[in-house]
Amino acid sequence: MIQRLALIGLGLIGGSLSLALKQRGLVGEVVGYSRQLQTRLRARELGIIDRPVDSVAEAVAGADVVFVATPVQAMAGVFRDMAEALAPNALITDGGSVKGAVVAAAKAALSTAQFAQFVPGHPIAGTERSGPDAAFAELFENHRIILTPMPENAADQVRRAEDLWRSVGAQVECMDVAHHDHILAATSHLPHVAAFSLVSALSRLEERYEVFRYAAGGFRDFSRIASSDPAMWRDICLTNRDELLPMLDHYLAELQQMRGLIDHRDGAGIEQMFSGAKAVRDALYRPVEPKTSAAEPASE
Amino acid sequence: MIQRLALIGLGLIGGSLSLALKQRGLVGEVVGYSRQLQTRLRARELGIIDRPVDSVAEAVAGADVVFVATPVQAMAGVFRDMAEALAPNALITDGGSVKGAVVAAAKAALSTAQFAQFVPGHPIAGTERSGPDAAFAELFENHRIILTPMPENAADQVRRAEDLWRSVGAQVECMDVAHHDHILAATSHLPHVAAFSLVSALSRLEERYEVFRYAAGGFRDFSRIASSDPAMWRDICLTNRDELLPMLDHYLAELQQMRGLIDHRDGAGIEQMFSGAKAVRDALYRPVEPKTSAAEPASE
Repeated sequence: MIQRLALIGLGLIGGSLSLALKQRGLVGEVVGYSRQLQTRLRARELGIIDRPVDSVAEAVAGADVVFVATPVQAMAGVFRDMAEALAPNALITDGGSVKGAVVAAAKAALSTAQFAQFVPGHPIAGTERSGPDAAFAELFENHRIILTPMPENAADQVRRAEDLWRSVGAQVECMDVAHHDHILAATSHLPHVAAFSLVSALSRLEERYEVFRYAAGGFRDFSRIASSDPAMWRDICLTNRDELLPMLDHYLAELQQMRGLIDHRDGAGIEQMFSGAKAVRDALYRPVEPKTSAAEPASE
Repeated sequence: MIQRLALIGLGLIGGSLSLALKQRGLVGEVVGYSRQLQTRLRARELGIIDRPVDSVAEAVAGADVVFVATPVQAMAGVFRDMAEALAPNALITDGGSVKGAVVAAAKAALSTAQFAQFVPGHPIAGTERSGPDAAFAELFENHRIILTPMPENAADQVRRAEDLWRSVGAQVECMDVAHHDHILAATSHLPHVAAFSLVSALSRLEERYEVFRYAAGGFRDFSRIASSDPAMWRDICLTNRDELLPMLDHYLAELQQMRGLIDHRDGAGIEQMFSGAKAVRDALYRPVEPKTSAAEPASE
């Protein structure tokens, strides 16, 4: 049971964690801060927070759990602002999609003792929607949350972070900070860059109005993640740059190889590549049933 | 009312057209051919065809409507095989995703009179599933079907093709053959190549098992079209090569630009590009409701 939760960042991730805890009666008071006054007011209206405050310091004062769910680049300032007001035994955790940069920011801003209270985390859940209105209590149920504990963390702090996420239905896994950033660059960051870039490329075509007119379900699914929050994804690209660039180069090389096969009319080569991709993808996700497909058909 | 429909190719598209006509009582007999005996037998079992036959010529003999729904590269042979047996006033149409190559194949194989009976078409509907088991009667309802009539077509043949598709609930639009291939390269063919290539690139990583383990909903949606039929998409790449290659280059240039922005840590440039893509994508598709998102959450 959490006495007082300090929520810094009141969007999809922060809002959903609060709603999930409240729904289960696992939290006393939720005190919330976000940069925009209107977001704070809206979050209170939606029942995400009980009490809006005007600063990070006010939010964390007296809180036994602090959850930081702002875009990653804003976290350095958040850690600086909380350092003075933090309670001695508070658990600090976050929901950032990049971990190396967040850990570095926390280390720079917090005292040694405070840094040991910070257990970095990344829930592998979300939608392309953002802001407090996008939050819902079921978001984390049966989804993975990756914690990246550090040598500085006390074992009981790590356990508190694990319990927090398990209490809202998530499956907790632990991995190394650097490894997290490498794997997520492939799994999540590269696909987002690929989707944003595809929609951007098509929108630059002179014939864009017609192109989008004939876009069907396949394009809708492919491009869904291009509706994600631009500021959040800007920060992910900037803070995970060193892992993302080689992954992007790997994708560019694959596209160039594909280009060569098409250019040389190498039907066998093309089919081999497509078959390989299909086999992997089919193994990951069972095909949807025809009736579901009827509701959301793909383009051809 | 169609007396006898000849169905060449018994997969998702051909099978669905037959089921849609049968459900509405708009067809007498459906005679079907596909290369594999097992596919013919399965199509009869599923009620897609009434009578399986052993050749294209047998299928088209006495048919008043012929629908060709094989992969695009197989269509040249299909047209050659039907030329001898075609009824004088039969409507011939097809469901190929590329139109220029199909028109050229028909022109080479058919007599002048027969060629005038061929009204090329492309239903903008489908799923990532393939084969007769993927077919369902509702596939075309409220979906676009693009016809690309030619100067050689008699007006009443074009009208018959329009009526055929409208009778199964599709919205008919007409455009020029070359224009179709250009627009669809952007709308459909490029996204498929991008998705196949992304899954292929990730599957070549040494850490692929872990990468796919942490792939969440965003990746699932992005990669869904990479579960499409490899032979069908090989044929599309080969037959629409001249439109696809410049479109792929356009995408590669966009990715390179994106790469440069990330490399130079140009946060404003990245955000501008992401915001532009999001604005276009949001305008195309209203965001899904939170409850739907809960069922299919995206990765972050």
